[in-house]
Amino acid sequence: MKFDPNSLKFNDAGLLPVIAQDVDSHEVLMLAWMNAEAVSRTLKTGQVTYWSRSRAEFWVKGATSGHTQELVQMQIDCDRDCILVSVRQTGPACHTGARTCFFTDLTGRTEVTS
Amino acid sequence: MKFDPNSLKFNDAGLLPVIAQDVDSHEVLMLAWMNAEAVSRTLKTGQVTYWSRSRAEFWVKGATSGHTQELVQMQIDCDRDCILVSVRQTGPACHTGARTCFFTDLTGRTEVTS
Repeated sequence: MKFDPNSLKFNDAGLLPVIAQDVDSHEVLMLAWMNAEAVSRTLKTGQVTYWSRSRAEFWVKGATSGHTQELVQMQIDCDRDCILVSVRQTGPACHTGARTCFFTDLTGRTEVTS
Repeated sequence: MKFDPNSLKFNDAGLLPVIAQDVDSHEVLMLAWMNAEAVSRTLKTGQVTYWSRSRAEFWVKGATSGHTQELVQMQIDCDRDCILVSVRQTGPACHTGARTCFFTDLTGRTEVTS
């Protein structure tokens, strides 16, 4: 069945959450947001393209930093309201320079940053 | 530093997205939502507890199905607006009976369900 990005379930702002996972290490790198056009652009170009909520513009990941995400696989969940992208990450995924955005542990009910 | 769930950044509905990843297989299993109290309950009980948006109630994952998620690790991202939980999943994570909610591939711009 041909995929239509508009068949996904977006929130009131026309966005859905996208989880980026490293294809090699399987680390969860980050969560960001896409609208239907960002989904289309990502599939068409093979470069993961989010919608930046703070800048209100398309955000080709790594376009300025060089820390690109090459799309390996895109999947949707059972509810069609979340996307999982498997990516080949160049450099760090996080704007802080960390490999992944998830570097603060809460498990012991204290914050531990690695 | 002692962790205060109210220090996280929630959306207008008082929720943030939570990614559940299998501690052993590293599969991304699902995405659901927590409010501050669900974060507290999850850390306190060690049983992953979401906020069900459709039922508007706390949702101890697996409480009715038996398909529980035992918390192994909880991390937040750099923006404090998303949580990653590493879990020991009993049975399938998805309500469809699939191991993970992400079983529909879009990569080739057609929908392929595994």
